[in-house]
Amino acid sequence: MRDTISPAYASLCAEIQRFHARQMQLLDSGDAEAWAATFTEDGLFAPPSLPEPVRGRAALAAGVRAAHAELAAEGEVRRHLLTTAAVADPGPDGSVRVRSYVQVVATRRDEAPRLLLMCVCDDVLVVEDGEWRVRERYVSRDDRA
Amino acid sequence: MRDTISPAYASLCAEIQRFHARQMQLLDSGDAEAWAATFTEDGLFAPPSLPEPVRGRAALAAGVRAAHAELAAEGEVRRHLLTTAAVADPGPDGSVRVRSYVQVVATRRDEAPRLLLMCVCDDVLVVEDGEWRVRERYVSRDDRA
Amino acid sequence: MRDTISPAYASLCAEIQRFHARQMQLLDSGDAEAWAATFTEDGLFAPPSLPEPVRGRAALAAGVRAAHAELAAEGEVRRHLLTTAAVADPGPDGSVRVRSYVQVVATRRDEAPRLLLMCVCDDVLVVEDGEWRVRERYVSRDDRA
Repeated sequence: MRDTISPAYASLCAEIQRFHARQMQLLDSGDAEAWAATFTEDGLFAPPSLPEPVRGRAALAAGVRAAHAELAAEGEVRRHLLTTAAVADPGPDGSVRVRSYVQVVATRRDEAPRLLLMCVCDDVLVVEDGEWRVRERYVSRDDRA
Repeated sequence: MRDTISPAYASLCAEIQRFHARQMQLLDSGDAEAWAATFTEDGLFAPPSLPEPVRGRAALAAGVRAAHAELAAEGEVRRHLLTTAAVADPGPDGSVRVRSYVQVVATRRDEAPRLLLMCVCDDVLVVEDGEWRVRERYVSRDDRA
Repeated sequence: MRDTISPAYASLCAEIQRFHARQMQLLDSGDAEAWAATFTEDGLFAPPSLPEPVRGRAALAAGVRAAHAELAAEGEVRRHLLTTAAVADPGPDGSVRVRSYVQVVATRRDEAPRLLLMCVCDDVLVVEDGEWRVRERYVSRDDRA
């Protein structure tokens, strides 16, 4: 179905695009606390690199802080490019599901960028205190499909 | 010109982004029939890999089914990342032209993803039975430019 | 904050997406004058490849014309894929800041595409004569970070 033709859906998509873009840019700049704050307090992040999901902002921030310090020591910059995002209509509780493709690009000084990972990202987003936040994020890697 | 500043253009873009994202995700998951249903009944698809365009849902679905079976046998996942989409204003008949860039990324188990193809995609989209569909799609590959 | 929930922000984003997509497509097709016209008359472009910013349409067009002629002689096609765009709310003077990620993909005949550069693009956009234009653009390369 052509589910939505209202301006409301366009506003939703525009907001979520900004949310996702900012969130990825915070992650890539290593701003661990600001990135963790884009999740709900007990937000769940199930990345492909860990056997168990991470839950809660403190754990989320700690993970990014450690990963970013390691990359900085190696002189590597990472970018998370989120594209091809399918934003669903909001559910009865106002949450919004989004499936998107995320390329992870890694670059070292004076070297060509490498396409490190090709991922699929499934989000459940909610509005909390007037802000979009991730309640649940499940990421899969194509090389482990 | 700043052609359009109305909410209608924003709604159009949001709908078309969802259409494209879902369509690429259906293709990559190998859901041949659902993908073919995103074209009009006599929809035309002119891919760079074939000497003649494919026309009609049955032929479209058959092509994707065969290609996906081959990739599955080889253990390869493909993703079509559609970005940089220029959505034109609707024409007099309501059809909408969109030019976008499509990266095709191929990944095998335990291997790094490869940027397989860089393509330009020219679509003519129409609304049929309340749904966006592709009436014509022309794809060119940069390595055969 | 969930800064904006009005249809106005969605319209702004849709227009800017079209502007950016068309601008990148003009650049990649080598249409130097049309590309330069997407900057204000005295628009500033600070690319990572030059020691000093380029200012003004004549200089902008000359740079693209020379670069495109060189690539054409080498049989190379380049694509600028702009994604993950964070569009800020307009400032008091109506200008809009956008931070986005740009992949530069280079392809030669019968060869696989290469991810040539991973860049961050910071724009200041304004409306002039009813059209969006770049007043300032700062681009950084991850391999020179």
